[in-house]
Amino acid sequence: MQKEDLLQTHTRIAPYIHRTPVLTSRLLNEIAGANLYFKCENFQRMGAFKMRGAMYAVLQLSEEQKSKGVVTHSSGNFAQALALAAQSVGVKAYIVMPENAPQVKKEAVKGYGGQIIECASTPIAREEVAAQMERETGAFFIHPSNDLNVILGQGTAALELLEDQPDLHYIFSPVGGGGLIAGTALAAHFIGQNCQVIGGEPFGADDAYRSLQSGQIESNETTQTIADGLRTQLGDINFPIIKEHVEKIIRVEEAEIIAAMKLVWERMKIIIEPSSAVALAALLREKDAYAGQKIGIILSGGNVDVQHLPF
Amino acid sequence: MQKEDLLQTHTRIAPYIHRTPVLTSRLLNEIAGANLYFKCENFQRMGAFKMRGAMYAVLQLSEEQKSKGVVTHSSGNFAQALALAAQSVGVKAYIVMPENAPQVKKEAVKGYGGQIIECASTPIAREEVAAQMERETGAFFIHPSNDLNVILGQGTAALELLEDQPDLHYIFSPVGGGGLIAGTALAAHFIGQNCQVIGGEPFGADDAYRSLQSGQIESNETTQTIADGLRTQLGDINFPIIKEHVEKIIRVEEAEIIAAMKLVWERMKIIIEPSSAVALAALLREKDAYAGQKIGIILSGGNVDVQHLPF
Repeated sequence: MQKEDLLQTHTRIAPYIHRTPVLTSRLLNEIAGANLYFKCENFQRMGAFKMRGAMYAVLQLSEEQKSKGVVTHSSGNFAQALALAAQSVGVKAYIVMPENAPQVKKEAVKGYGGQIIECASTPIAREEVAAQMERETGAFFIHPSNDLNVILGQGTAALELLEDQPDLHYIFSPVGGGGLIAGTALAAHFIGQNCQVIGGEPFGADDAYRSLQSGQIESNETTQTIADGLRTQLGDINFPIIKEHVEKIIRVEEAEIIAAMKLVWERMKIIIEPSSAVALAALLREKDAYAGQKIGIILSGGNVDVQHLPF
Repeated sequence: MQKEDLLQTHTRIAPYIHRTPVLTSRLLNEIAGANLYFKCENFQRMGAFKMRGAMYAVLQLSEEQKSKGVVTHSSGNFAQALALAAQSVGVKAYIVMPENAPQVKKEAVKGYGGQIIECASTPIAREEVAAQMERETGAFFIHPSNDLNVILGQGTAALELLEDQPDLHYIFSPVGGGGLIAGTALAAHFIGQNCQVIGGEPFGADDAYRSLQSGQIESNETTQTIADGLRTQLGDINFPIIKEHVEKIIRVEEAEIIAAMKLVWERMKIIIEPSSAVALAALLREKDAYAGQKIGIILSGGNVDVQHLPF
């Protein structure tokens, strides 16, 4: 993997994604005691950074592969992202979703032209049903986070952030399945000027923290967190990148996630989902260590049910 | 009043305000059937366009006037705006607020260094108390909307919007006390290329609609609307400008305001207050008449209690 791969990924997906703005806030700078640059992937198409990786993965398919479609399993933003990315280039998308997924998420996938296949609500069931769809239709399976093309796509958010603010000392990113933070770490490594990447992770789903401690992929012991995008775990493709290029992972309490989310809503007047707030929460938890630094924060997405808020 | 006055106002206040972004949304364009350009004054300092007018009014004071401070009466955004504007140049601000104003608003005014004077919750009481403060302290009274400097300041939002998008056919603005729409109308007149200004107003506080019908300033018969920034009425300084330069006013139902607000939250991922949603609601109510046009929409502010939402 080289800098050229990331730059070429960005060029390839640029016509299909938004170049999202980087926002600042005097008040949040005061609260953090540092200079913060928020990369607003909540303004990305379909409302999250996932669009980047999905788009690149779809664009990398051969014409023959495209003709048979793509398949993934996701109950969250990647389901919508793959449906929209596939639709953008006229490719069929099969999305395996748990039968108990929220109706609003199913509607969103349908709205982007995705075909939903329901499965039981267990990790094994969704993998099995996705594998079955792959066999039956010949569709190409794209993993939401453990896929090199997806990782490169997600890295373009930090690439853009570093183009706008080349001299960041740190970038904070949430850690879920590992695609975003792995891509961010590659971007910081290739493009940054000695820019360190730090992950934020809920105590309630801290597989990545423990994986970095033990040196091997650990499973989540619980997935009890409001940050529903971060309940998944690392994979064998993204973990080596994370192990090599991520400085550290800071775990945060649920109350810290909710407080950080409320802070962004009230002070920056933008809507972010709980998973997005985890990166800011991580910085605020250990802010004394980062005082005066120039820090990028990836606001990963804004898909939240405004009728059911945690505050 | 000339184009030069508006340009000079903008130059004068520019160091003290944010040049707010103009956002677009494919989804909202599809829903409206037109090309929309949202001027995001919800990202303005203290969270609303009111900062512009307050800042200009304060900057226009003589040194002697500044030494005695400023006074206004407001339970809403102008209270915060004048406190912050005054603080920005080291001037004392006396803010007359009804005793039953929400604690969070009082705290915000105090946070910006304003001194609160409580009064009974009637229009007459607040005017009397403000006049009394003026007499006692020598502070200069600045009206939230019926003041030429305030109107010019508010007009700089549309000025910036037209600098970014010079060929807008229409600008939609909410109508409350009349300062914003009068300033917007001046900007469209001076800077626009045949750009018409249209107001959005709640049926529950439709003094401006009826004033344009009758040709004289009418009072609100009720002020029952969720759009709490629009419960005030026009004044003798802004009404002549509105009468001359505003194309029409479209009234909207409460349900339309809430629906427009939810649309912006969910689709654009930004936080706007109910008063801000009135302009979009007005456009959507009569969207067939504006199909295919290039339309600016002033999102006037984002100060809303996220713990008490109408949806």
